[in-house]
Amino acid sequence: MDEKDVVIVGGGPGGLSALVYAVRNGLDAILIEKGRCGGLVTEAPHVDNYLGVRGSTGLELAEKFREHASDYASLNEFEEVTNIEMSDDSFTITTSKAGYGARAVIIGTGSRHSMLGVPGERKYAGRGVSYCATCDGFFFRQKEVVVIGGGNTAVMDALHLNELGCRVKLIHRKAELRAECALKDAVADTDIETIWNSGVMEILGGDVVSGVRIRDMSGDAEREISAEGIFVSIGEIPNNGLLLSLGAEVDDKGYAVTDPFQRTSVSRVYAVGDISGGVKQIVVACSEGSVAALAAFEDLKNPYWSTCSLPSAEK
Amino acid sequence: MDEKDVVIVGGGPGGLSALVYAVRNGLDAILIEKGRCGGLVTEAPHVDNYLGVRGSTGLELAEKFREHASDYASLNEFEEVTNIEMSDDSFTITTSKAGYGARAVIIGTGSRHSMLGVPGERKYAGRGVSYCATCDGFFFRQKEVVVIGGGNTAVMDALHLNELGCRVKLIHRKAELRAECALKDAVADTDIETIWNSGVMEILGGDVVSGVRIRDMSGDAEREISAEGIFVSIGEIPNNGLLLSLGAEVDDKGYAVTDPFQRTSVSRVYAVGDISGGVKQIVVACSEGSVAALAAFEDLKNPYWSTCSLPSAEK
Repeated sequence: MDEKDVVIVGGGPGGLSALVYAVRNGLDAILIEKGRCGGLVTEAPHVDNYLGVRGSTGLELAEKFREHASDYASLNEFEEVTNIEMSDDSFTITTSKAGYGARAVIIGTGSRHSMLGVPGERKYAGRGVSYCATCDGFFFRQKEVVVIGGGNTAVMDALHLNELGCRVKLIHRKAELRAECALKDAVADTDIETIWNSGVMEILGGDVVSGVRIRDMSGDAEREISAEGIFVSIGEIPNNGLLLSLGAEVDDKGYAVTDPFQRTSVSRVYAVGDISGGVKQIVVACSEGSVAALAAFEDLKNPYWSTCSLPSAEK
Repeated sequence: MDEKDVVIVGGGPGGLSALVYAVRNGLDAILIEKGRCGGLVTEAPHVDNYLGVRGSTGLELAEKFREHASDYASLNEFEEVTNIEMSDDSFTITTSKAGYGARAVIIGTGSRHSMLGVPGERKYAGRGVSYCATCDGFFFRQKEVVVIGGGNTAVMDALHLNELGCRVKLIHRKAELRAECALKDAVADTDIETIWNSGVMEILGGDVVSGVRIRDMSGDAEREISAEGIFVSIGEIPNNGLLLSLGAEVDDKGYAVTDPFQRTSVSRVYAVGDISGGVKQIVVACSEGSVAALAAFEDLKNPYWSTCSLPSAEK
């Protein structure tokens, strides 16, 4: 079994930044990602708030991240971690391809899209219901679509679809958006129609989606909105399975509880990026990755692990 | 007097990232910097741990940051904040050029280089004693220099000077470096001479520097090391004058005490970057800037401040 100092699970910005910092500090580290690295960044149509990288698509930024991290270690992509066992002072990581030993584990498994939980949603997933406008919007060019949600992601999705030539309706449960002002202003400059105070009750269709049934949140009036594409952008759920199996503490929403150095309640297990809750921004995830790697470096330092040719570092 | 939602003091990565986030969230924000923006980043010979920006000089990276932020607001450079007065729910900021009102203040004033505090240090500052190898190293090509310190910065300085063709001695009070392994290995691959367990007692010279007198920390033996350049890299001191005058709490080293959202103990005063202590890394400062701006946005949101053409955001 391949023995490592640190195994990083998840190839979003948090995990990738952790890898750079871990290797730069002389730790023997690998990153394991079940798909291709990049995380949810890849889904952002446009990113301009990561300082130093002006206006790029999410895919472009994710690729910059991926290439940078791969300068330091080869990335184990398309390999899924299925189990982590803890024993005394080490961990045994089982994946879809191999097994690894590690003295520390950095968890950056991110979050997944929330579902509406209404009739028709599962039936029409992939047949008109999508959770990623960036990924699927192209298929709905010139068509009628609805976007459900009121945060940054929902608004960016609406703008993206509008640019693709879709006729977009934005449906939100509240009377106003909670997106950035810049994004709200951008919506106001388009033909995007906003439908306020409305909850989606059902996804309608035959073989494929034909629309949604919505209910006014103040009254009880229901009506149908026709659409060929339904984009659900109502938030995320933490992918905390590995954390929970390790016995790490999570908060009431399922996000990892960490100290300021990204340490979870389990010794030598760290959480970075969206899985650690808080502000979900790319630059925050990158910061958490660097801090976690430095914390792991501190926590592990002793003659046993050092791969450095000079005496190990001291605080 | 120019009334703003947010005044950001300091143009390092923390302040610049805060500006991007503040403006993107519809806040009327300005950034005031006493010199040129970039902060201590400008002094780093080489930066390769800011994810997404592969191998650049500190100056190049600082310029990327500066250009990116200036997409959002013009930067008030070469303007020094001399005083901040607090009254009820607003702040009055006095600078070397003007006065501003603000409803929130983000402090990113960074830190400055520690001095040795030994005889000869002040006398020879600028006459052989330097606190910035990146800035001044060029003047010492092919000459004998000493670097004092044992952390990342000291080691990077030593490597930089070595590359410039200096004959470098690295003097450290301890028996081993506390720099990253990668950096320690790099030193081992050069002709840089390391002098362990040695404290500098005096800077020697006539009109200009001629060397240093060092003392063995285990015994008391003293000796002189000849050098034309003395590079002091022994850490930083927080520039906390404005924070203290506002009555914000600082820790025993003088760094701002903040909550996880960069709020100081004074309402609507935030601290970002090196002044807030913790892990001093570029990506961490950028993250803190984004988090502080989002916190300011949350703390200020009400109809009064909104410059957004749509209703103000809600959580």
